[in-house]
Amino acid sequence: MTKADSSSYLENAFTLESLRDSLIRQEDSVIFSLIERAKFPVNSNTYDKSYISVPGFGGSLAEFFVRNTEDVHAKAGRYKTPEENPFFPEHLLPPVVPPFPYPEVLHPASAFININKSIWKVYFDELLPLIAAPGDDGNYASTAASDLACLQALSRRIHYGKFVAEVKFRESPQDYEPAIRSQDREALLKLLTFESVEEMVKKRVAKKAMVFGQEVSLDTDDKEGNYKVNPSVVSRLYEEWVMPLTKIVQVEYLLLRLD
Amino acid sequence: MTKADSSSYLENAFTLESLRDSLIRQEDSVIFSLIERAKFPVNSNTYDKSYISVPGFGGSLAEFFVRNTEDVHAKAGRYKTPEENPFFPEHLLPPVVPPFPYPEVLHPASAFININKSIWKVYFDELLPLIAAPGDDGNYASTAASDLACLQALSRRIHYGKFVAEVKFRESPQDYEPAIRSQDREALLKLLTFESVEEMVKKRVAKKAMVFGQEVSLDTDDKEGNYKVNPSVVSRLYEEWVMPLTKIVQVEYLLLRLD
Repeated sequence: MTKADSSSYLENAFTLESLRDSLIRQEDSVIFSLIERAKFPVNSNTYDKSYISVPGFGGSLAEFFVRNTEDVHAKAGRYKTPEENPFFPEHLLPPVVPPFPYPEVLHPASAFININKSIWKVYFDELLPLIAAPGDDGNYASTAASDLACLQALSRRIHYGKFVAEVKFRESPQDYEPAIRSQDREALLKLLTFESVEEMVKKRVAKKAMVFGQEVSLDTDDKEGNYKVNPSVVSRLYEEWVMPLTKIVQVEYLLLRLD
Repeated sequence: MTKADSSSYLENAFTLESLRDSLIRQEDSVIFSLIERAKFPVNSNTYDKSYISVPGFGGSLAEFFVRNTEDVHAKAGRYKTPEENPFFPEHLLPPVVPPFPYPEVLHPASAFININKSIWKVYFDELLPLIAAPGDDGNYASTAASDLACLQALSRRIHYGKFVAEVKFRESPQDYEPAIRSQDREALLKLLTFESVEEMVKKRVAKKAMVFGQEVSLDTDDKEGNYKVNPSVVSRLYEEWVMPLTKIVQVEYLLLRLD
């Protein structure tokens, strides 16, 4: 594939309409990953720093797992695409694949916007206790792998705010420029908030949690409401964390858009 | 958690009824993973040995990715549970976690039953072209990560045949012993085949592909049938590969059950 081919492939994908489609599609990924994590009980040894023994490493198995898996992903080139942001960006290993001509649609400084520390904290401290049942089945490695899938799906979704902010800015720069020039976070946040859209998203993700988390059998549909992840938790996840964190990404992006 | 706690937790999980529930639940995981892979086009560079440059390594990015991720999973203890089987078992790294007292329910020799080479071949040669659209978006690392999720879900599901065979044997050893003593593969295969059950599984996984792969929106349900993975492909996956490979695992297991 030539540079022209791949650039046009990706440039075409970069409209407000297609970003919306991507965000909606990413809801499915987020919910699938939560349902998969909910297969396992809490498995608290995964998060207990005293459980593992790695010389010179003081973190939990979950952190060990994410750091080491990110090494593999970095070698495979994952963090060269502007859509992906690592949880441990300090010592990224160089890729073993040639550079790919991703179209440069974002402001270059946006590469430094990374709120994965907040996402990590929200995921482990707030969300996980709401989706995993108490208990221990010893499947700590698979548990950590499911945690990573959730973290990556949430991180990708939330940092997509960079693209959303860029497209919104391009569509009506005059709306954003005054607030950017005065570095007015609050004014930007107001410009980016559409309550009716947010209400719709909350309802849609709850519905998706019902559809994807139901027991599907041949005779009857699941009328008992034994969903694998509580739909109201998914709705709350979006209301309290995903949408506010996305807006933080958008605001941070816009603040440097004219630099 | 004490040994007694965790053993009873897992022993309780080990009945024909609970195995059935697990197999049904694993269908969801398999289908989620296929839907997630179908987000990306084929991205053939992921499978092209000439695309990556790693001194001393002659495989594709997909193989590099799976081998290196399995190293991390092995360190996290994944392959100590009898439910998991690595794709590259030759050089498994030792875990950084203490041993977990998984109950010993399987015949010890079953640890050597591993048909992941066949699963690998079926996945890349047969299944992948049926679920990924032609094209290239440069997301090779994420593509390889989705491939690994599919491979792991399929491998876990298919090797669960070991547990199914063990429980079936325990329930009526007299049915299986003659065929085992005469090492009669064909007779065992016949004992393990229930066509009406297989028909039901094929229908159920197709229905799940429709439910999980539909476009969920607030106003209407998806009546257009634009499923993210073709339900008939999922049905065919189970008919032609998952169920036959599971029966191979079951037969191999039973053949050594009296050793």
